[in-house]
Amino acid sequence: MSKGSNEQHVNPKSDIEISQEADMRPIVEVAEEKLGLSSDDLIPYGHYKAKVSLDYLETIKDKPDGTLVLVTAITPTPAGEGKTTTTVGLGDALNHIGKKAMICVREPSLGPCFGMKGGAAGGGYAQVVPMEDINLHFTGDFHAIGAANNLLAAMIDNHIYWGNSLDIDSRRVSWRRGIDMNDRALRNIVTSLGGAANGFPREAGFDIVVASEVMAIFCLATDLADLQRRLGNIQVAQTRDKTPVTAKELSAPGAMAALLRDALAPNLVQTLENNPAFVHGGPFANIAHGCNSVIATKAALKMADYVVTEAGFGADLGAEKFLDIKCRKAGISPDCVVIVATIRALKMHGGVAKDDLKAENVDAVEKGFANLKKHVENMRSYGVPVLVSVNRFSGDSEGEMTKLQELCKSIDVECELSDHWANGGPGAANVAEAVVRICDEGKAEFKTLYPDDMPLWDKIQKVAKDIYGAADVTADKSVMNRIKELEDQGFGHFPICVAKTQYSFSTNPDAKGAPTGHTIPVREIRLSAGAEFIVVICGDIMTMPGLPRVPAANNIKLDEQGHITGLF
Amino acid sequence: MSKGSNEQHVNPKSDIEISQEADMRPIVEVAEEKLGLSSDDLIPYGHYKAKVSLDYLETIKDKPDGTLVLVTAITPTPAGEGKTTTTVGLGDALNHIGKKAMICVREPSLGPCFGMKGGAAGGGYAQVVPMEDINLHFTGDFHAIGAANNLLAAMIDNHIYWGNSLDIDSRRVSWRRGIDMNDRALRNIVTSLGGAANGFPREAGFDIVVASEVMAIFCLATDLADLQRRLGNIQVAQTRDKTPVTAKELSAPGAMAALLRDALAPNLVQTLENNPAFVHGGPFANIAHGCNSVIATKAALKMADYVVTEAGFGADLGAEKFLDIKCRKAGISPDCVVIVATIRALKMHGGVAKDDLKAENVDAVEKGFANLKKHVENMRSYGVPVLVSVNRFSGDSEGEMTKLQELCKSIDVECELSDHWANGGPGAANVAEAVVRICDEGKAEFKTLYPDDMPLWDKIQKVAKDIYGAADVTADKSVMNRIKELEDQGFGHFPICVAKTQYSFSTNPDAKGAPTGHTIPVREIRLSAGAEFIVVICGDIMTMPGLPRVPAANNIKLDEQGHITGLF
Repeated sequence: MSKGSNEQHVNPKSDIEISQEADMRPIVEVAEEKLGLSSDDLIPYGHYKAKVSLDYLETIKDKPDGTLVLVTAITPTPAGEGKTTTTVGLGDALNHIGKKAMICVREPSLGPCFGMKGGAAGGGYAQVVPMEDINLHFTGDFHAIGAANNLLAAMIDNHIYWGNSLDIDSRRVSWRRGIDMNDRALRNIVTSLGGAANGFPREAGFDIVVASEVMAIFCLATDLADLQRRLGNIQVAQTRDKTPVTAKELSAPGAMAALLRDALAPNLVQTLENNPAFVHGGPFANIAHGCNSVIATKAALKMADYVVTEAGFGADLGAEKFLDIKCRKAGISPDCVVIVATIRALKMHGGVAKDDLKAENVDAVEKGFANLKKHVENMRSYGVPVLVSVNRFSGDSEGEMTKLQELCKSIDVECELSDHWANGGPGAANVAEAVVRICDEGKAEFKTLYPDDMPLWDKIQKVAKDIYGAADVTADKSVMNRIKELEDQGFGHFPICVAKTQYSFSTNPDAKGAPTGHTIPVREIRLSAGAEFIVVICGDIMTMPGLPRVPAANNIKLDEQGHITGLF
Repeated sequence: MSKGSNEQHVNPKSDIEISQEADMRPIVEVAEEKLGLSSDDLIPYGHYKAKVSLDYLETIKDKPDGTLVLVTAITPTPAGEGKTTTTVGLGDALNHIGKKAMICVREPSLGPCFGMKGGAAGGGYAQVVPMEDINLHFTGDFHAIGAANNLLAAMIDNHIYWGNSLDIDSRRVSWRRGIDMNDRALRNIVTSLGGAANGFPREAGFDIVVASEVMAIFCLATDLADLQRRLGNIQVAQTRDKTPVTAKELSAPGAMAALLRDALAPNLVQTLENNPAFVHGGPFANIAHGCNSVIATKAALKMADYVVTEAGFGADLGAEKFLDIKCRKAGISPDCVVIVATIRALKMHGGVAKDDLKAENVDAVEKGFANLKKHVENMRSYGVPVLVSVNRFSGDSEGEMTKLQELCKSIDVECELSDHWANGGPGAANVAEAVVRICDEGKAEFKTLYPDDMPLWDKIQKVAKDIYGAADVTADKSVMNRIKELEDQGFGHFPICVAKTQYSFSTNPDAKGAPTGHTIPVREIRLSAGAEFIVVICGDIMTMPGLPRVPAANNIKLDEQGHITGLF
C-alpha cells in the first residue's frame, strides 16, 4: 500500500504521475524476453496485462523451484512501512544485479479505491503497472469471485424456496453475499421480503469480495480440480438439527468453478523497470491468510530463479499465516525473510506521537526496536534467515540510522537501508545483494510453528504465546464447545487463522512496541472448510468497509481525452 | 436466443458441440483481413475476443456509413423464431455472397445461464464464438456496469449516513442495486440494519444488471463524454419536499464513468464462419430499449458495407424501440427491416396448441398470418422496406410454405426461406441476395413514429393505437399527474419506452394473432433521465429473475481437462 509514501520526499511526483510516465513494454515482450514464454502461453488482457495459461504451467510443473524471498514488516503504524514497495523494489533490484527474478503480490480490491484516495500497486519508483487497470477491474478476477460467491448464495435461497429438501434452517445460513464495493448499508439486511414469490425472509448480509471464503479458496487451490473440491466443502448453513450443509449438497461447486476457471490463471504485469510480476488473488489478512495465490507463487518459482512475495499486515499476522497456512499447504518455504521497517514507525513504537516524528529521537528508535526484535525472533523460530530492510525517508537522521544498525547487530541480524521508493531497483541493490548472499548460504531449515495434529486449542496457545508474546489465552464455554465440535467433525488437523488487530502484538491496537504478559481473548471460532483453516476471532473484524464522509469517488472524473483523473 | 432451436432437425449436434468444433481464427487476423484493423487498434481479451479501441473509432468517424439491416420478428411464441440465428446467418450469408458485412448483437446476461440451460449467442450453424466466454464473463462489461450501478447506490446511502445535506428522503430512494445473477431473495430487502454504524434502515432491492438504467445509458451513449453526462442526469431519489436528486449532485458520474471506460469499447468476436461480429451491451427490452450499443452499431457502419443488427422481443416492442429510441437518438436508420417468422409460430398465432404443431395445418398458417401482417404494416409505417425471412424447420410442409408465400405476396412483401441454422451462411444466401436488392433500390425513407415535441400522452396513444392496434389507452389520475409533472420538469421531449408483455400486441399474453380493439392500461410512469426516455409500464415487469426448481447450475462442472460441461 502506497498510502503515506508520498511523505518520503519533498515535492515528489505522485504515484499516478510516475506510473503514467512509465515506459511500459508490451507484456508479450516482457514475457518472452524475461521468462521465455511464447505468446501462445499467454492470455492477453489488453497489451500490458496477460494471464499465463494453466496449460503452460502444467508443462513446467516438474522444473526445480527457484529461491523464495518473503517480505513482511514490523507492526504497522500510521507512519507507514512500505512493504509492497519493498517487494517491488527488491524484485527490480534482483533483476538489476543480474538475477532472473519475479515478484508475486496481491490484487487490490476495487471498493476501497472509491473510499480513501490511493491505490495498492506499490508507490514511488517501485510500482507495478498499468496502475489504473490493476486498481480497477484488472482482469476481472474479483468480479468472478464475487459471482461464484453469489451464485452459491442464490442457490441456497433457491433451495429453500423450492421445498428445502435438505431442511436448511433459514436462521442458520452462514453464507453471506459478496460485492467489491465499500457499502456499509449491505452489512446487515433482511432478504426475500415482499411476499411468497420472493422466498422466506431471513437475516443476511454482504461482505466485500476479498473477505469471501471463495477468495481464500481461490488463493490456496493448487489447480482447477482442487478448486472445485474445496468449493464443494464450503459449509453454508445448518439444518434444523444443526447438521452442516455444504456447497456440494447444493450442487454448486461445478458452476462456481466454471465461473472461476479463467480467473485462476495468474496475472502477469510488469514493474516500472519492465520486470515480470504476478498480481493474483487478494484475501483479507484477518479472517483469511492474506497472501497472493498459491498458483502464482508456485508458477513464479518455476519461471524465475528468485521470487519475491509479500504477506499482509505485520509479521505476527501476515508472515505467520504465510508460513503456517500457505507454505504448509503448498509445500513451499522461504529461503530468506525480509522484515521491512522505517525509522519513523520504530519511533512510533517507541512512544512518539505522529506529529512529532520529524524530530530526531534516537532513544525512541531504541525503545521501538523492541517491536522489530520480536518479529525477528518470531521469524527465526520458523528456521528461516532474516534480513531487515529499512525504507529510507528524507527526515531520518544519521544518528537514528546508526543506532538502528547497532541494535540490529546486537541481535545478529543484517540491516540494509533501501532507497527503492526514490530510485527504483538500483536504490535497493544492496538489499538484493544481501538477500542473494543469505540465500546462497542455504541456512534455511523451514519448519512450521506447530504440527497438523496438535489440538486446536494448543495451536491457538502456541501462536498467542510464541508469536504474540501473550501470557494467556481465554475463551468462554461456547468457544471451547465449538472447538471440540470441530475436532469431533474431523477438522482438528487444519491450521488456525487468527483474526485480530494488526496494530499490536496484543489485541489492544494502542499497545505499541512488543507488549508481553497480555491475554488473548478468543471471541468466536469459524470454520473455513473449503479454505481448510479455522478462523480464530480475537477482536472486532470488519468484513464490509464503508465510504468516508468525502469519498475519493467524488473527485474521480474522465477528462476530455477519456483519461481518469483523481483516482490516486 | 437458441432455446428451442434444437427441435429443428433430427439428431442435430448441440449448439455447444458445434461451437466447440468451430475453426476459430485469432481475432487479430479476423480484424486485419476482414476489417483492415491493425493489432494496435484492438484491445485483446484472450486470443479470440478483443475490444476495438475508442481511439481507433475516433479516426474513422468521418467515413461514410454502410447499409444497416434490422432483424426483428413476429410476436414470440414458445415455438421459437430464431431472431439471433437469423442475424448471424444473414451476416454470414452477406459475406458468403461477397459483401463486407458485420453483425451487431447484444451481450448475454450471466445470471440466466445458471437458471435455464441454454446460451444466447445464436444456435446451430449460426453462432458467434467463443460461445462459453460470451455467455460467462466475456470481457467483463456487465460486471463493470454492475459496479458503476452499485457505486452510485453506496454513495446514496453514504450521503445519508454522513449528514444528508441534500435532504434525501430515505423512503423515496428509487435507485436500486444491481447484480448479474438470478436471485429472487434480493428483489425486496431492508438495508442498513444492525445499528447506527450501518446507516439508516430503509427498503431497497436489487435488479439484474441488464435491467439497470446504467445498462441503457451504456447502450445509448455516443462517447465517453456523453456517457458521463448521462450518468450525471440519473435521478436516484427525492428530497423530503419531493425535489429530484441526481447522480451529479452526489458527485458520482465521474467515478461511474471511470468504471465504465474500458467497457465502452465494443467487443469484437467472430461467427462460426470467421466473419466479424460486435457483441456489446444488452439492456432489457421492456423497461429499456433492448438493443446492442449505439457505439458498436455506429462503429460497424464505418467498418463494414453491410451491418446486420437485431432488436429484442417482437417488432412491436423491439423494432419500435430500435426505431423510435435508438435510431432517433443515434441518427441512424435501417435500409431494410427483416421480419423473422416460422411456420410453427404462425400456427400458434393461428390457434394451434404447442403439442399439435407437427401436424400440417394450412388454415392455421393463414389465420396466424394476421400477426406477421400487422408487424409488416407497422414497419412500413416507419418508411422502411420490409422482407420476411422464414426460419425453416424440418416439419414444415410444402403446403404451409406455399400458403405463407402467397399470403406475403398478397401484401406485396417478399418472403424468403432460410436454412442458416442447418447450413450457416450459404443456407441464407437467398435472404442476403434479397436484402442487397432491397437496399440497392434505396427506397428507405425513415421517419420516426412521432416527433419529439408530441405530448407524452399522445406518444403513448400513438404507439398503442398504431403499433399495438389498441382502441384505447387508460391511466389513473396518479399516472396522468406524473406525466404532467415530467412535462413540467422538461422531460416531455423524451421518447417513450413501453414495458408490456412481449407475447401479444395487447397486454394479455394469451391474445395471439393480431388482436384489435383492446385497451392498454398504463400502470406507472418512470423517468430514465440518463437514458433519456420515459418508461411506460403496462403490466408486471420482472427486473430480477429467480432460479428454477432444478437450476442449470446443478449440472455444470469442470471435467478433468478443466473444460466446462453442462453449460448448454
